[in-house]
Amino acid sequence: MTILERAANGAIRFTDPQIEMAHGAGGKASRRLVEGLIAPIFANPILAPLADAAIVPVDGARVATTADGYVVRPLRFPGGSIGELAVNGTVNDLAVSGARAHTLMVSLILEAGLPTEVLRAELEAMAGAAARTGVAIVGGDTKVVEHGSCDAMFVTTFGVGALDGRSALDPRAVRAGDRVLVSGPIGDHGITILLARGDLELEAELRSDTRSVWPFVAALLETCPHAVRWMRDPTRGGVATALNELVRESGLAIALREEEVPLRAEVRGACELLGLDPLHIANEGQLLAVVAAADAERALAAVRAVVGGEGAALIGEVREAPARTVVGITPYGGTRVIDMLVGDPLPRIC
Amino acid sequence: MTILERAANGAIRFTDPQIEMAHGAGGKASRRLVEGLIAPIFANPILAPLADAAIVPVDGARVATTADGYVVRPLRFPGGSIGELAVNGTVNDLAVSGARAHTLMVSLILEAGLPTEVLRAELEAMAGAAARTGVAIVGGDTKVVEHGSCDAMFVTTFGVGALDGRSALDPRAVRAGDRVLVSGPIGDHGITILLARGDLELEAELRSDTRSVWPFVAALLETCPHAVRWMRDPTRGGVATALNELVRESGLAIALREEEVPLRAEVRGACELLGLDPLHIANEGQLLAVVAAADAERALAAVRAVVGGEGAALIGEVREAPARTVVGITPYGGTRVIDMLVGDPLPRIC
Repeated sequence: MTILERAANGAIRFTDPQIEMAHGAGGKASRRLVEGLIAPIFANPILAPLADAAIVPVDGARVATTADGYVVRPLRFPGGSIGELAVNGTVNDLAVSGARAHTLMVSLILEAGLPTEVLRAELEAMAGAAARTGVAIVGGDTKVVEHGSCDAMFVTTFGVGALDGRSALDPRAVRAGDRVLVSGPIGDHGITILLARGDLELEAELRSDTRSVWPFVAALLETCPHAVRWMRDPTRGGVATALNELVRESGLAIALREEEVPLRAEVRGACELLGLDPLHIANEGQLLAVVAAADAERALAAVRAVVGGEGAALIGEVREAPARTVVGITPYGGTRVIDMLVGDPLPRIC
Repeated sequence: MTILERAANGAIRFTDPQIEMAHGAGGKASRRLVEGLIAPIFANPILAPLADAAIVPVDGARVATTADGYVVRPLRFPGGSIGELAVNGTVNDLAVSGARAHTLMVSLILEAGLPTEVLRAELEAMAGAAARTGVAIVGGDTKVVEHGSCDAMFVTTFGVGALDGRSALDPRAVRAGDRVLVSGPIGDHGITILLARGDLELEAELRSDTRSVWPFVAALLETCPHAVRWMRDPTRGGVATALNELVRESGLAIALREEEVPLRAEVRGACELLGLDPLHIANEGQLLAVVAAADAERALAAVRAVVGGEGAALIGEVREAPARTVVGITPYGGTRVIDMLVGDPLPRIC
């Protein structure tokens, strides 16, 4: 989910004459669409500062809510399917906002002619993912459009959770010296989807990392709640885009030690071959967090102790300058500016 | 929204080999899909008994939530557009559950190539409808699919509200002798959409009734909260389907005096010409309610006093028999069984 923000300088205008794939890719074009068109129209005083969920006051409770659409192609891929993504992705948007998902609703748009067995498999995938993460699917909606008017099935999931309250997450709480933590190897999901389409003469033993990141979040909140400043699940646009959003919002810099970023050989190889930066590739089960330096090793140990978090690493640190910039530091001491995703090299990965 | 219910007799199985348009039409086929396939897979103890919203406990508050997808074609039509429907429809699902909408999230699936001006017009329609009904749009999501992979734009809206609490709505609270109230002429929306497609050589001065029904609900809750047993906004499947759902859930009968059902001449004429039953045609701004007989006239006066409710009428009453049946009583004293919608005579009306 993208919270609708006002442009910081009030100056962004969306002047593209039509919608292109890049506007849905989660990178720069997506931000221009949201900041330059959607947010100014929807502007209202309740717009929330958090990035992945909105906190809504209802009868004295602080209810965390999030909404996400899923249009991944193909529907099934090694390690998961649209059904699992639709549950885990929404659970994760709440988790990185410090809220444990509680209840989901699932709204389906189905193409006439969709085999019932395909639908059944995805409903079962959703139910399985919901059971594994301890959330209930309590309602939803089904619309059917003519054959050719949508691509098999689209899923939109709405999540409700309760704010944990142990940590105060805020990009403005991030300080120079804080450390950047990632829960494991990046890029598995995006490259898995790319390979699953079969357009490339590439094969690799790779699976999507789709899963709930709540266990990682819970470990951090249990171990060092006051050290956790900011969290994100780096989906569309990858780690680079998430960190660029953070430096924009905090006004600080991040120095990323590129050799510390966990990366499977298969993902590295595919990215080199295709000219992609793994930092721009989507993940669907990794946690990216900024934690206070004093607690960084404890935080790392806590995430590594969680099943699936064995590959966690501290990959960089927050600095004062260059302001609003993510800098990659190569193994040889060189530096490069790591930008947000531009364009859409991998459409419809979630 | 459809709440996922277990089949009453546990016996319904969905055996259709593929999804057809009728499964999205809100009538019998939709119920078979939900009861025979979706509900058994998602089954969990939190499944709610209400029909249009789920009540989720969060931190001691009773949060009303609902989800609905919108795929109406054409996007714009006399009296409204997909943007207004996406706000009003979700506000209405909460309203008829006795909850005032508070916050919306909007998830968009856009087709690459969609002119920005089309998107802008719908965002403005959403913002306008939200402002008119006093709800804030606090977040959302945008996905883009290739040209040809969806039909211009689909919208899914999630609504959060607070349960009003003044009335205890429950189909099982309905009693023989209760009266059926409708807030105004039926069928305007469905027939407007049909005419807007231009496939027929018909023209009429007709507009969609899309609007929030909360003012009607608020009037009832203010005037006679304890008299209100059940409410519904009769969208897909129309008044006939909504009342059939009520008799199924309550085990009672409803006798509908057909000449009392408010109906514009244009809707009557189009239905006669096309062989459609106006009771099966969708509405997007009418309230259907069952109220205690003793308060029925006060309830009617309260709804009639609301702007837009001047055409409200008492159209029937609840009876003991024939159980689980809606009976139409014609002006000449004849009777007919009024069934749920079967098939999908008007696809994609919302």
